[in-house]
This record gives sequence, structure tokens and C-alpha cells, in this order.
Amino acid sequence: MSELTIDRVRAAFAALGTGDRQKMLEYWSEDLRFEIPGNHAHAGWHEGLDGFLAFLKTVGELSGGSYLAESITVLVNAEDGYSVDVNRNWALRAGAPKESTSPYHLLDVTALHLLRWQDGRIVEGRGVILGDGPATSALWWSPLGPDGVRSQA
Amino acid sequence: MSELTIDRVRAAFAALGTGDRQKMLEYWSEDLRFEIPGNHAHAGWHEGLDGFLAFLKTVGELSGGSYLAESITVLVNAEDGYSVDVNRNWALRAGAPKESTSPYHLLDVTALHLLRWQDGRIVEGRGVILGDGPATSALWWSPLGPDGVRSQA
Amino acid sequence: MSELTIDRVRAAFAALGTGDRQKMLEYWSEDLRFEIPGNHAHAGWHEGLDGFLAFLKTVGELSGGSYLAESITVLVNAEDGYSVDVNRNWALRAGAPKESTSPYHLLDVTALHLLRWQDGRIVEGRGVILGDGPATSALWWSPLGPDGVRSQA
Amino acid sequence: MSELTIDRVRAAFAALGTGDRQKMLEYWSEDLRFEIPGNHAHAGWHEGLDGFLAFLKTVGELSGGSYLAESITVLVNAEDGYSVDVNRNWALRAGAPKESTSPYHLLDVTALHLLRWQDGRIVEGRGVILGDGPATSALWWSPLGPDGVRSQA
Repeated sequence: MSELTIDRVRAAFAALGTGDRQKMLEYWSEDLRFEIPGNHAHAGWHEGLDGFLAFLKTVGELSGGSYLAESITVLVNAEDGYSVDVNRNWALRAGAPKESTSPYHLLDVTALHLLRWQDGRIVEGRGVILGDGPATSALWWSPLGPDGVRSQA
Repeated sequence: MSELTIDRVRAAFAALGTGDRQKMLEYWSEDLRFEIPGNHAHAGWHEGLDGFLAFLKTVGELSGGSYLAESITVLVNAEDGYSVDVNRNWALRAGAPKESTSPYHLLDVTALHLLRWQDGRIVEGRGVILGDGPATSALWWSPLGPDGVRSQA
Repeated sequence: MSELTIDRVRAAFAALGTGDRQKMLEYWSEDLRFEIPGNHAHAGWHEGLDGFLAFLKTVGELSGGSYLAESITVLVNAEDGYSVDVNRNWALRAGAPKESTSPYHLLDVTALHLLRWQDGRIVEGRGVILGDGPATSALWWSPLGPDGVRSQA
Repeated sequence: MSELTIDRVRAAFAALGTGDRQKMLEYWSEDLRFEIPGNHAHAGWHEGLDGFLAFLKTVGELSGGSYLAESITVLVNAEDGYSVDVNRNWALRAGAPKESTSPYHLLDVTALHLLRWQDGRIVEGRGVILGDGPATSALWWSPLGPDGVRSQA
């Protein structure tokens, strides 16, 4: 069983990007639960690796592939089996004007993942948003544009 | 063309309950726009009488038919073509424990509709929630139960 | 006792602007209760005409006197003793950059007052914000600027 | 200069409880900035150790001394100079009924602190709340009781 290290946390996220399910399963449990924060349509606990991957696909669609994350730091407590990775995130809703700064269009938050590891793999993840990001990101996740039109369904 | 009166406002809502589309069209325009307040999955402007009826069907499903409204008062300004009807509303999410008082389960708000009338029919409606109801009702509309589980999708 | 008319509603708000307490008391009860919507520091029921006037003073300070309201319509139900006045509202937080469109700086909402009248005077008022205004105006009322700094205390 | 360890993080929080300012300054910088999440009256960046201590005093008052925290785990990245401590938190608003489960009365959230350390001391802290806790805790921080009365000012 692999030790929980900063490198292993980074590798777990890199595996998600490969599209290789076998590679993912080296780090993420089949029975993973992953919580998206807030109370919007995509918030709450997503069950199973497949539930989590379906959520990530949704994010890709809502953001038109614009989602960017920049790592700030990664922390681990190998004995307790926890990691935290802190990231700056940006994303523009698909179809939004490129230059828009409206929180209905532009996500610009610092957030982190709290991951619980068991037997070398992630069994539980919780996304968390810093500052007043939970309030502004609720607008981004909504079906509304700044004019209240359901243009982002 | 019928005059805008309190009785006509009440009749418009009664027509919605009949399921008789011709009856509805005596009061509600085919080109109706109706805004549901907030930023949850069903918020924003619903377009057309059919869009509005589809929303009402969704409410019926989410509440398992438990939605109750009690009229407080109705006001009209016939010259400007506006009406307001104020109502107390209750609804329990389908599947929630009957006795639950959690705002994720129980909607208990005072709310109103601001309706704009043209040529005897409603062309625009806006639902509005009083007090801190916008905050508590966001939890009701969410896919989450009180434990964060997506049990209400 | 004066009848409840659209003109009387307009006169009630005009009286608030005179600074003449005797004039105000022709329309507003000494025992008035007035609810500001939301859950921010100034939300909830303000008790007494003095409590309401203190709130209005606070709004003047927070907005550096920039608060503007444009009437859309006024409705009355004289028999039930209710009025509703619908208004478009703008306000810039004191000290905010004039051109800022951030919801932490700029309030730009459609809102209404639901007033209950008794013996010719207002005994209860409830402010209500339309659309997703409750979410965006929460940012305006907060002590935060867009960067999270408590610059607006 | 002391190394950043799990024990040192625990000792930093223990020092806050001693009331001994010299003891605190072994762990917390005089120039500390600490962010409380959300957009309520006490949210945003509190400046200086004194600003942070003033905030903690406010929490003690609002909760009538009922605030409880139970540690879940602590993580450190000594090289980057970051720690995270995850805790379960409970608090009842002062004056609220002991058995109340209303989110206006009862805070019941899992939260964490992200701390940045420099030269052996904390220079920046950010409180963060997991799940939908940002929404429910906004009600707790508000001046409102469940009936909208400003009883918790």
C-alpha cells in the first residue's frame, strides 16, 4: 500500500485528467463519496467514483471547458489518513461574455478539497470554498444570467 | 375586455387549477413570462404559459402534492394593469418525515405574486418571498436533505 | 379618517422625507413595525416609528446618500387595509468606486413595500426584494468589499 | 525558530484559551489577519491579533459561552508554511431555547482553519465551513430569531 504523501495527492488529481479508469482506481475508491458544497442543483454528496466523474463532466459542460485551477499548497496527515489541497479556481459559464465580471458568469474563488484516505485510496472528498465564495459561487451555479433569464440551464 | 378586479385575480388562479387550457387562456397570456425568485435550479424566468405550467408540475412533484396556499389579501391597480396577491404557503418535500421542521424539508413562508395585465390577461408574473424566506426556501429547493445527501433530486 | 388611496400611499412616503415628525404621524403609526428582508445586520423587524427612522438613517449612511427609488406602480385594497408600492432601487455603498458594478458596492434591485393600514395609518410594513435580489443585496449589506476586507463596517 | 508540527498547531489554539497575551504571541503574529467566512456582520478579514481577539470575544457573547469544538484532524505542510485543523462545531445563540434545532439558534457545522505560518508564527488565518454550513450558519449569525424578530442583536 502506498504511503500518503503530497506527491500522491497530486498524482490522484492528475489521474482524474487521464480519462483512464484503471489509473484513477489506483487513487480513488470505487465507493468514493464526494461532496460539492452549497445548495445548488449540483451540490451535496455524489456517490461512487462514477457519480463523481459525472459531476466533473457537468462542470466541464457548464464551464465550456474553461475551468482553471492553480495549486497553492497541499497538506497531508498520513497517520489520520487526510489530505487537503488548496487551489485558486476560475471558470466562465459556457456562453457568457468573455470579459464579464458578473458572479453569474465568472467563478473566481479560492477553494480546497478535504480528502479522507483508506488503504491507499480516497474514500471521501469534500469540496470547500473560502471567504464569501459560497455566496458568489451560488450565482455561478444557478440557471440564471445576470438578468434573471434561464439562459444557463 | 374584462376589467381588472380582485375577483378576476382570484379567478385567474382558480383557472390554473382546472387543468382546462382554454379556461386558463381567458386570464393568462400564451406569451406569459413568470419569474420564480432565488437562484435554485427552478428559479428565473419561465417562458410561455407552457413553461409556467411545467414549473407548476415540478412543484407538485417536489412537494408530493402537499403545497398549500392561504390567501391574505389581493390588491389591484386597474389603470396601471397590476395586481398583487399575498399568500401564506406551506409545502413538505416529497419523502420528508411528516413532522420535520428542517428548512430542507418544510417550506413555510409568506409570499406574493406581482402580476402585470394587458388586454385583460396576465403577461408577466413575478413570485416574491417575504422576510428571510428567500434564504430558508433555498434549502427547500435544493437537492439536499438536512444531512447533505442528494435524496431530493 | 382618511380613505386609503394611491395618493395617500405616495403622501406617506413623501412625509418620511420631510423630517417633520408630526407630518409623519399623520400616516405612520407610533407603534409601526417594519421588516427589512434578509438576514444581514440590519434585517428583521424594526420596532416603532423611531426604530424605522433609525434604520432609514443607517441606509443613508451606508449609501452615502446615494439611494434612489423610482416608482413603478402603487396598489391598494382599502377594504382589507393593505397597500403595495413597487419601486426600482439603486444605491452605491459609501466610499465605493463610482463606476463599480460589483454587488458588494452597487445595489440595483426591484423591490416593494407591503403596508398594512389601520385607522388611516400604517401599522406594519414589510420590504420585499424581487428576483434574485435577496442574494445580491446580501453582499451590498455586508461589511465586506469585493476583496473580503471589512472596509464598509 | 520552532518547527511547524501538529503539536505546534494544537498549542497555538491552546494559547488562545489562556488569556495570556505573551503566550499567544509565541504562536500568533501581532500582525495576524484572520478571515471569518460569509457576509454577515462579523464576516471578513479581522486585522491584527487584537482584531481577532475582539472577534473571539464577540463569538463568546453571541453564543453565551456555549461554543464547542471537537478536533477531527490536523494537517501541516512545514515547507510551505501551512496548517489545516478540521473541527466539528456547535453553538447555541445566547437566550435561545436549549432544545431548539432552528438554524437561527443552533450552529452545528464542520469547519476548518487554514493557517499560514511565517518565522514560527501564524500570520494569516481563514475560517472555512464545509457542506451547506455557509447557508445555515448565515441564519445563526443574523440578528434574527426564527420569527424574524431582532432578538439577537
